[in-house]
Amino acid sequence: MKLARLATILALAAALAAPSAGVQAQQQSALDKVKSSGTLKVCVAQGSPDQYKDPKTGEWIGVMIDLVKELTTWMKVKPEFVETQWNVAVLALKRGDCDLFGGSLVFNAPRAMEINYIRPFGAKGMNAVIKKENPKGLKTPDDLNSDKVTLAAIVGSREHETARRLFPKAKILALQATADVQINEAVRRGDADAALLPAITVKWWLSVPENAAWAAMGFPGKDFGNAPNGWAIRYGDSDWKDFLDAFSGWVAANNVALALYDEYLAKTNPYQK
Amino acid sequence: MKLARLATILALAAALAAPSAGVQAQQQSALDKVKSSGTLKVCVAQGSPDQYKDPKTGEWIGVMIDLVKELTTWMKVKPEFVETQWNVAVLALKRGDCDLFGGSLVFNAPRAMEINYIRPFGAKGMNAVIKKENPKGLKTPDDLNSDKVTLAAIVGSREHETARRLFPKAKILALQATADVQINEAVRRGDADAALLPAITVKWWLSVPENAAWAAMGFPGKDFGNAPNGWAIRYGDSDWKDFLDAFSGWVAANNVALALYDEYLAKTNPYQK
Amino acid sequence: MKLARLATILALAAALAAPSAGVQAQQQSALDKVKSSGTLKVCVAQGSPDQYKDPKTGEWIGVMIDLVKELTTWMKVKPEFVETQWNVAVLALKRGDCDLFGGSLVFNAPRAMEINYIRPFGAKGMNAVIKKENPKGLKTPDDLNSDKVTLAAIVGSREHETARRLFPKAKILALQATADVQINEAVRRGDADAALLPAITVKWWLSVPENAAWAAMGFPGKDFGNAPNGWAIRYGDSDWKDFLDAFSGWVAANNVALALYDEYLAKTNPYQK
Repeated sequence: MKLARLATILALAAALAAPSAGVQAQQQSALDKVKSSGTLKVCVAQGSPDQYKDPKTGEWIGVMIDLVKELTTWMKVKPEFVETQWNVAVLALKRGDCDLFGGSLVFNAPRAMEINYIRPFGAKGMNAVIKKENPKGLKTPDDLNSDKVTLAAIVGSREHETARRLFPKAKILALQATADVQINEAVRRGDADAALLPAITVKWWLSVPENAAWAAMGFPGKDFGNAPNGWAIRYGDSDWKDFLDAFSGWVAANNVALALYDEYLAKTNPYQK
Repeated sequence: MKLARLATILALAAALAAPSAGVQAQQQSALDKVKSSGTLKVCVAQGSPDQYKDPKTGEWIGVMIDLVKELTTWMKVKPEFVETQWNVAVLALKRGDCDLFGGSLVFNAPRAMEINYIRPFGAKGMNAVIKKENPKGLKTPDDLNSDKVTLAAIVGSREHETARRLFPKAKILALQATADVQINEAVRRGDADAALLPAITVKWWLSVPENAAWAAMGFPGKDFGNAPNGWAIRYGDSDWKDFLDAFSGWVAANNVALALYDEYLAKTNPYQK
Repeated sequence: MKLARLATILALAAALAAPSAGVQAQQQSALDKVKSSGTLKVCVAQGSPDQYKDPKTGEWIGVMIDLVKELTTWMKVKPEFVETQWNVAVLALKRGDCDLFGGSLVFNAPRAMEINYIRPFGAKGMNAVIKKENPKGLKTPDDLNSDKVTLAAIVGSREHETARRLFPKAKILALQATADVQINEAVRRGDADAALLPAITVKWWLSVPENAAWAAMGFPGKDFGNAPNGWAIRYGDSDWKDFLDAFSGWVAANNVALALYDEYLAKTNPYQK
């Protein structure tokens, strides 16, 4: 038997016996890779107050960045932030640009079909901006589910999708806007009874006196449409998933994420002049 | 070397190098299968109010069915319900009749040795039916752990097993019955001080005025013997497990299961005439 | 082709196609091993009230031991306890001395890089021993983060590490001691304002009247520096991980661990004379 022939046999045998793609993906856990390389590559996309660049220093700061650094300091490895855009965030993670998507990613099922969510750090709710006088006498989010109510939401946003699911009886005014708070104008003009926005945005925007002069939060303490939010990794690496889940459990047991949100919300209001 | 000989070598080499059954089971995740086929096969066994056939339409309805549909709508795949009986539920899942047991399966360790529970949607407790006058002066479930107390339970039921574990000092009257609420007669006759039943059953049964005329719930607001309940899958598929766990986390963050139980409990009381 | 040559080819082919160590580790889950052998091997290291030898019988008792027995009784397998020392606990598990580290292991990231934590049974907090008169007027743990406060802690302990992280402004007196409660003397002498210890230790030590005569718990009901605690297994076995996580979920749904801690704390105070 010639050497070329032996090589052919070996190649064929190896090919026949090779595990499937699913199994191959598990051959080295990112946990082992990070341990041996000393570096954790973290994809992030800009979003305040979770992860954004400090206007003064250009450094990444925010709640999620602090959580990444808490982890890497404890692991004695270096974080390496890889900036990505939101529309390619899932792709960037899947093709291996990083070991972890370390920005705040809200849960939805289509995204979860592609990437593996780490145990969430919390859940982001939404709320409504209404007129201060509350002319429709709204008391709970359920009151929005009425054909006498018109809701404003950014077309295609999470609030838009949630409104259709939770308030099927309401009329929905789906708007295009360059800044999401522009939809509050529809409430001011009387085109809508309530504008649906992330609860954080509602709080920030109402802390500006000229907004609070005419508008109010519809349901204080009653956020709705909660979306668990946190990190994500690729499928096929359960060791890495378990390691990060356990860290997230420690964060929860110590209220670390809540404390960081309080801290950043107090200092990063983008609507404050 | 002849071709036959080459084939033999390759077959032997492949056999030698083949991964074990455990690894082979992971070669394709049910997540990938569902994505590519567009269909989620869901095993269910009848049980009200979790999953049962609408008497009018013959369609599957109930809390767990609504959760399955919430998920499949979001995933943009079709659910295909496969009816099974409770005594072969674990087997049906293990042999591949479905991708998911989508009925409400309560946790117990022997079952967990065979199938992999998804993060539970809640926990089902039990409570007691006692005489309205409470002649034994029972105040908390712990009061049942006394040699002066006789408990009625369906032989071999979860309540029977739990009673032996939680109330070792009590006398236990283990009864055969075609309908579980028949054991309440033992309390009425004075043969037992308390009948142990699922909390939901106790609530339903007592909402019938002729029952409430002589009987009461032993420990309102103090269910005991909680069993986490939810879906299950086969072992060896951690991607599918993680995907479904994350969905269950979203359900919890939005109280979807609790709201569905309230809704179905109000409309499906099987004891109401 | 000679037989020796065939053997060489097969060996080479097998080697080429062999899955990596990570995949091999998954070839048999500990769950299958325990099921077929009927025995669960459990590593434990002494620590009261979690797992310790009954002074009278020499048998392992404690909160974690009771949880192990609850599980093995339910699984219908026998527990086999393998004693290990704390400094080699991680090594003993990794090299396969047992299927499970069944003592109470607190979470920290470096340890989690080596072994896979099961869903924790609870979280252990710390608290402070201060003078009864509270001369510094301390009200919440945050008050310890001041350059006017001196904290005593055992050098290198979890309390020491936590103090540096949570109270960076405080002066820290890092002490060597044979028994951790010896650092309370630094408070008595006035060298420190507060001694940081596990909350359980503070409770036990203060239940001795001569200690309670001059000292008090700094922040009753406000433990801080929580560390999730529970069992651990080797990485690479997600079926075993899922099985044990589900059992831990059942423990949580029934408050089993909390009840056991109350029971053992009442009867095992090592400072009571």
